[in-house]
Amino acid sequence: MAALIYPDYPPTLTSEQSDYIVSNIKDWSILSGLAVRPSSSFVSEKIDPSRSLAVTAPVTLFPSLFPRECFEEARAIQTAYNELYACIANDEEWLGEVVKELAEVDDFISNLWNVHQAVKKEGYVQDLSLGIFRSDYMVHKDPSNQEAKPEIKQVEFNTIASSFGGLSAKVSALHKHLLSISAYPPTIPPLISDSSLPPNPSIASLSRGIATAHKAYGRPKTSSQLPLCTLFIVQDLENNAFDQHALATNLLTDHSVLTFRLPFSTVLAHTSIPSDSPSQPLIYTPPHSPSTPYEVTTLYFRAGYSPAEYTSPNSWNARLHLERSAAIKCPSILTHLAGSKKIQQILATPSSPHLSRFLSSTASAAYIDRIQVTFAAIFPLDDTAEGKHAIEIATDPERIRGYVLKPQREGGGNNIYGLKIPPFIKSLGDDSKKYRGHILMELIEPPALRNGVFRNGEVTMGEVIGELGVYGVCLWRHGRDEKGEREILENWEAGHLLRTKGRESEEGGVAAGFGAVDSVCLIDV
Amino acid sequence: MAALIYPDYPPTLTSEQSDYIVSNIKDWSILSGLAVRPSSSFVSEKIDPSRSLAVTAPVTLFPSLFPRECFEEARAIQTAYNELYACIANDEEWLGEVVKELAEVDDFISNLWNVHQAVKKEGYVQDLSLGIFRSDYMVHKDPSNQEAKPEIKQVEFNTIASSFGGLSAKVSALHKHLLSISAYPPTIPPLISDSSLPPNPSIASLSRGIATAHKAYGRPKTSSQLPLCTLFIVQDLENNAFDQHALATNLLTDHSVLTFRLPFSTVLAHTSIPSDSPSQPLIYTPPHSPSTPYEVTTLYFRAGYSPAEYTSPNSWNARLHLERSAAIKCPSILTHLAGSKKIQQILATPSSPHLSRFLSSTASAAYIDRIQVTFAAIFPLDDTAEGKHAIEIATDPERIRGYVLKPQREGGGNNIYGLKIPPFIKSLGDDSKKYRGHILMELIEPPALRNGVFRNGEVTMGEVIGELGVYGVCLWRHGRDEKGEREILENWEAGHLLRTKGRESEEGGVAAGFGAVDSVCLIDV
Repeated sequence: MAALIYPDYPPTLTSEQSDYIVSNIKDWSILSGLAVRPSSSFVSEKIDPSRSLAVTAPVTLFPSLFPRECFEEARAIQTAYNELYACIANDEEWLGEVVKELAEVDDFISNLWNVHQAVKKEGYVQDLSLGIFRSDYMVHKDPSNQEAKPEIKQVEFNTIASSFGGLSAKVSALHKHLLSISAYPPTIPPLISDSSLPPNPSIASLSRGIATAHKAYGRPKTSSQLPLCTLFIVQDLENNAFDQHALATNLLTDHSVLTFRLPFSTVLAHTSIPSDSPSQPLIYTPPHSPSTPYEVTTLYFRAGYSPAEYTSPNSWNARLHLERSAAIKCPSILTHLAGSKKIQQILATPSSPHLSRFLSSTASAAYIDRIQVTFAAIFPLDDTAEGKHAIEIATDPERIRGYVLKPQREGGGNNIYGLKIPPFIKSLGDDSKKYRGHILMELIEPPALRNGVFRNGEVTMGEVIGELGVYGVCLWRHGRDEKGEREILENWEAGHLLRTKGRESEEGGVAAGFGAVDSVCLIDV
Repeated sequence: MAALIYPDYPPTLTSEQSDYIVSNIKDWSILSGLAVRPSSSFVSEKIDPSRSLAVTAPVTLFPSLFPRECFEEARAIQTAYNELYACIANDEEWLGEVVKELAEVDDFISNLWNVHQAVKKEGYVQDLSLGIFRSDYMVHKDPSNQEAKPEIKQVEFNTIASSFGGLSAKVSALHKHLLSISAYPPTIPPLISDSSLPPNPSIASLSRGIATAHKAYGRPKTSSQLPLCTLFIVQDLENNAFDQHALATNLLTDHSVLTFRLPFSTVLAHTSIPSDSPSQPLIYTPPHSPSTPYEVTTLYFRAGYSPAEYTSPNSWNARLHLERSAAIKCPSILTHLAGSKKIQQILATPSSPHLSRFLSSTASAAYIDRIQVTFAAIFPLDDTAEGKHAIEIATDPERIRGYVLKPQREGGGNNIYGLKIPPFIKSLGDDSKKYRGHILMELIEPPALRNGVFRNGEVTMGEVIGELGVYGVCLWRHGRDEKGEREILENWEAGHLLRTKGRESEEGGVAAGFGAVDSVCLIDV
């Protein structure tokens, strides 16, 4: 962990200053829908059985310092990242090889692939695919080189259910509001200012993405020309629903696009594909209005990304049912697969040729290099030369400090850091399959920062680390003919997210209960 | 209570339809700041000591039917009402007589008057006065005449702390939202439509009123040219704070006017008037920023209206201190006094000459009549001819059904209805002072309606009655010279409020825990 860049930031607060900031956060957030449903540990179901209460989403008191060049670079390369992942999703053959390799350690990936295979067999009816992506970075500063410039290193690339875009624009607005009412005491040098707090259009930009897919769907395919809608596939109990509502409301007010929410667990009960319609439109019949069915143009998945959500064969039937339909999926199964950790690992393996292969037709070598340098090196633990080298490091307490060991399996959690890695590797015994279930990744060394987090009515001040996510929207046409050329129809950078967590908390994001939504205060370093 | 106009409205809901409406109300409301802090009976202080939780403000499921002509008439006469009350506030001599009469039954009114007298003695330094008024009506339909058209009858006229303008615009928008997502099942005839849901600009219009006063204040009067602000005088614990925040936020975003909130109980601790400044600017020193004092242009009272808030002599010192200052008061003491029940009673006494006296210089007799017919007749219980007649009625069970007995004292509550009046009068014995502490008012007979109220996560369906409030903004210059002519500078109608309560609940408004904020669905009857 590098030293604090500005040890005096954020300024120390008197209790009156802290009270003023917190009271304005509490009030402005609720006035502006920057809210979550409280967790059951905060408010028990007995007190609020109908889940009507809300509370300020976990947020930071101050915008966190972030190097301006890193921020601008992360934004600048987002459209290339969008294109990269559209290309990967389009390369069915390569994805198939990766899945084959993973099959024995990861049922979830295999099952996703099986869904794709089944739909492919009967023939896809929808070639358009919508990606709402988020590329997550940490700022990395080489701890061994005082002169090193900070740079961004990718933590992960999300191709499904990229969340918090409906809240992050509001946190940016919250911190601007606190600045505008002079709630922040002055600092030397003056750091928080209109020019250091960039605009954050995530809500408008992401909902425009869904609206663009909705429009690209075209006229109804049903013979009865049903009214059109988009469908958000959601989890049964979602504390973070206001994040999603912000997009749905914007779709309605700015684009006149009607949205319904459907729990993943009830997909088969409320949607259907008419058996007599070769174009396979997806029909949604709202329980509150059974005589008015709708045709679904766009499926926006805010569920179905975690193995734990597939509780029965019917969960997979539901996913297959949706994938078969003519609705534009955000994301398609292939796009979902493109976001698996294994793909990130392959791309980031130092000798990998794939990045160039995907991008060289449209991007210059210099531009591809800008993507390349955002990868923290990732190594497989297998019997390739690189794999063997990685196993050596992973078993050597002298060399393992700057690494993290991650399970390949999706939704696994349980990362293992530094010195805890060698004994863990030892505990695996000689089982090479178990080795292959993990990857070794260079640890990113983010600068130490301080901030306060407001959560469930309480403020915690301390050292934190931040993770910048840049959203991207991409609409493309899958190349399913012999040439297999994808056609990118829309591609834009779509706002950002800063998530900040206590330095002690090595796992998880805001939803997992550890962190807070933050905004960037740009600095020139 | 008249029969239901449209007995099939609102339509009967299936449980799925009700669930859909309620779930959208729960989500849209929090997304849009249509919220309150939960009462301690819903969420105990132990669970949420920092008062961070919020819940949907009590709202109705449907917009309530309201006769279009009544709605338009209430709006059309609002500027005349604004002018009337500006005139009353300007007629110090007459107000003095009224107070004298009330002195023995109402300490609160006397104390307010004493504040005015004290400031008058040393000389007022601010001639501008801002009124944010709300005139409340019920629809009245003569139950003895089937052919009678519905008409509006005034319940009360508020000159201080007229609340819910920050929520009512949002409830209008909520019901429009539910219409736009087809959450309302169709009715025959179709009643809820874009044309039956009028716009409600209460938030923008009321905050524009405060901004107008802020601007009219002019340049700082402090020699150091302090930055200017407005000050909301609030109660210590306010569940309905988001109603107020909506105005403060609009002031900042639309008018660049900074607002601070100051509990009435801490006025003397945080404000001051420099002893060396004859113009007596009011200085507010924020506890979070003691080195940056502000000069207050406008005092917006959302506290200080109830006798219960004046807990010690210092409460009165605080009110005097504010009244002495150069800040424009919303309202001034005289305007506050103009809104006392006694004034309404005098105006509404059938033979009263005062309405004409105040308005005849600017309004036609026909226009004055339109105000006059909104009065429900109110009688004193004293030894005038009208008073004696009223006492006769009040003690006669045969004639008392259509009346309500109200205490003259402000903030009294405890209205007594119909047949309960004669035994109550009897219990007063022969004490004419106790008689004089009450007025007798014709009971308004509102049409019976049905609606559902969503409150604290629960829906209650049933018969309801609605009360329409029309907001008014008026900025005028008190005539303090010999001529005493007031000068009206700004005067507009400023949106509306429909409050709806269960028919069983004879007392109180939304804040008192009985009712809900509603919107109007206009019908032609």
